[in-house]
Amino acid sequence: MNDLGITKPTLLIDESKCRRNIAAMKARAVNFGLAFRPHFKTHQSLEIGRWFKDEGVDKITVSSVSMAKYFAPEWNDITIAFPVNIREIDEINKLASKLSLNLLVESLYVLDFLQKHLESSVGIFIKIDVGYHRTGMNPKGIDEIEKVIALCAGSPKTTFKGFLSHSGHTYSCHSSEEINEVHTSVLQVMDKLKRHFIGEYPGLLVSLGDTPSCSVAENFSGVDEIRPGNFVFYDLMQYQIGSCNIDEIACAIACPIVAKNKERLSYTIYGGGVHLSKDRLEWGRTPFYGGIVSDEGEHWGYFIPGMYVKSLSQEHGIVKVPADVFDQYEIGDILFILPVHSCMTADLMRGYYTLEGRYIEKDY
Amino acid sequence: MNDLGITKPTLLIDESKCRRNIAAMKARAVNFGLAFRPHFKTHQSLEIGRWFKDEGVDKITVSSVSMAKYFAPEWNDITIAFPVNIREIDEINKLASKLSLNLLVESLYVLDFLQKHLESSVGIFIKIDVGYHRTGMNPKGIDEIEKVIALCAGSPKTTFKGFLSHSGHTYSCHSSEEINEVHTSVLQVMDKLKRHFIGEYPGLLVSLGDTPSCSVAENFSGVDEIRPGNFVFYDLMQYQIGSCNIDEIACAIACPIVAKNKERLSYTIYGGGVHLSKDRLEWGRTPFYGGIVSDEGEHWGYFIPGMYVKSLSQEHGIVKVPADVFDQYEIGDILFILPVHSCMTADLMRGYYTLEGRYIEKDY
Repeated sequence: MNDLGITKPTLLIDESKCRRNIAAMKARAVNFGLAFRPHFKTHQSLEIGRWFKDEGVDKITVSSVSMAKYFAPEWNDITIAFPVNIREIDEINKLASKLSLNLLVESLYVLDFLQKHLESSVGIFIKIDVGYHRTGMNPKGIDEIEKVIALCAGSPKTTFKGFLSHSGHTYSCHSSEEINEVHTSVLQVMDKLKRHFIGEYPGLLVSLGDTPSCSVAENFSGVDEIRPGNFVFYDLMQYQIGSCNIDEIACAIACPIVAKNKERLSYTIYGGGVHLSKDRLEWGRTPFYGGIVSDEGEHWGYFIPGMYVKSLSQEHGIVKVPADVFDQYEIGDILFILPVHSCMTADLMRGYYTLEGRYIEKDY
Repeated sequence: MNDLGITKPTLLIDESKCRRNIAAMKARAVNFGLAFRPHFKTHQSLEIGRWFKDEGVDKITVSSVSMAKYFAPEWNDITIAFPVNIREIDEINKLASKLSLNLLVESLYVLDFLQKHLESSVGIFIKIDVGYHRTGMNPKGIDEIEKVIALCAGSPKTTFKGFLSHSGHTYSCHSSEEINEVHTSVLQVMDKLKRHFIGEYPGLLVSLGDTPSCSVAENFSGVDEIRPGNFVFYDLMQYQIGSCNIDEIACAIACPIVAKNKERLSYTIYGGGVHLSKDRLEWGRTPFYGGIVSDEGEHWGYFIPGMYVKSLSQEHGIVKVPADVFDQYEIGDILFILPVHSCMTADLMRGYYTLEGRYIEKDY
């Protein structure tokens, strides 16, 4: 792939892997009888969004009002899976007037604000904290939850849609067994809530979020909708968690080698924290910021053993190089790096190149 | 400052602090008889660059060819303090035809490439590894260094300018004493090189880079030029290193509170890794991603004890809140956060607002 005409850090996507990942997750949703509302925060691209349309996807999740605005021209059913930012009420009103919009609420305060300031009606999901402890209402606080639902019903502008969770704690798992353990505990929490309220609110939905659970779980009883996002590209973090295989990772960063140091057995690459992000993983106790894969001509291949990004500054990356590999690369060659966290990497880069050299804009 | 009309994560700069930081560093350069070639990778803005012109600065440092291209319309003396990326030779030639350009070289291979492909003449600095071990030639390898200098002399396209170093290892210091210790060792290394070559190359310069040394050292014997960058804003990392006081930090991120959780004594803010970056520091063994400062109306104030950004995901930040502070803020209020690493934060954000509400573009 060294002939792609790359001159500086470039985010590559393997379109066929990407489309396979989308099709596979769609098939899982169909298989388990779940609605599929993929999260678009990972790719942030209208064009990649159309690959989901090719698989029959008709509703999406985003993580900010700005992102909803970006996707609004092509999608008319959007959930903003982020606590309502009341300072953006004007933009929320513009969106709600044009499309079917769902918002996340976890307090009476915000719901009350919405009912006073909304100009069109929106769907309301109540965010439930299922153990990740980032956001959400305590599922044991049934009285509090009931109050929020009751307030919802008090205005035609806010329609209670159901309960939404994000099992972010699967991100500390290291196998599908561990993921399933977390996932099972989440199912229990959500199922209990559903049973409690379904009599009074027969249409209520349970929406689940994370890529690890959605990738490997074999039981979704009580769940109505899934919202994974990262699976479109996957990355080394998902690989380490146990969500994907290496050959399902659909994006890589291409970085030119700018210096070699034989004493330290390292290369310096043009590619730093502003390209890869400072997200890191550990192998044993060694932190790393990306893994180097081979160049197989038409596509990238597998890990080159012992070769990884060992540190990053703003624009520099330092790559640890095994002694027997050192002479195989020259200054000016391109290294292909699987990122630790594709969501962050994609956010940093302004666009993508496919392996065929086609540029995909990411205007968001 | 809650009346600035902020609706989402916004990077604020205190223009007067910023200008004071520039003036103070310029004064240090003048005081020590040093040329001042500030690094512009931190602010990446033509407009903020003009504040340096107001202090009489006429030459700059950047960290990529793209950045040199961005600043080229207003600056005609630029050092690209990054190992030459030979894949960008066409852009380098365009720049070299228009302005006085210095490049960094650390191998015969790259110098040879330049001499074959350059169309105009450039200045060459040899990058010396003074202990940070990121890039650069080993200062003990006098023979190797001599070969590079000799090759330089072999072509009118490459003029040997001197030795350049970046003491990145000051970033692990925790006091001005420790910074001075590192700095003194660097002076010795560079001085030895200078003495060795000055007879043959009487005009050779020694150029030093890092913000910690440039901020606190009181001895620059043998040094000709300094290239600090981060000092324009400073940040919590520099504060922890010992380079600055809290009230010299000239940028802060304003983030709306979107949820409160009394059980966990935390707020959720709209402001995550895509705004603050994942750079972190530790207090004791507690990692944090930003410190919350008070709102003093016209400007931000000091730390609110015990209040800090404890975790970040893509768009969310979780702020730890002391019990006695919890009720003082409401959803929709803005928190002001001093960033851990202003270079990374500024890179992520598309522009700045001054405290007077003026927008400063950062088109790079």
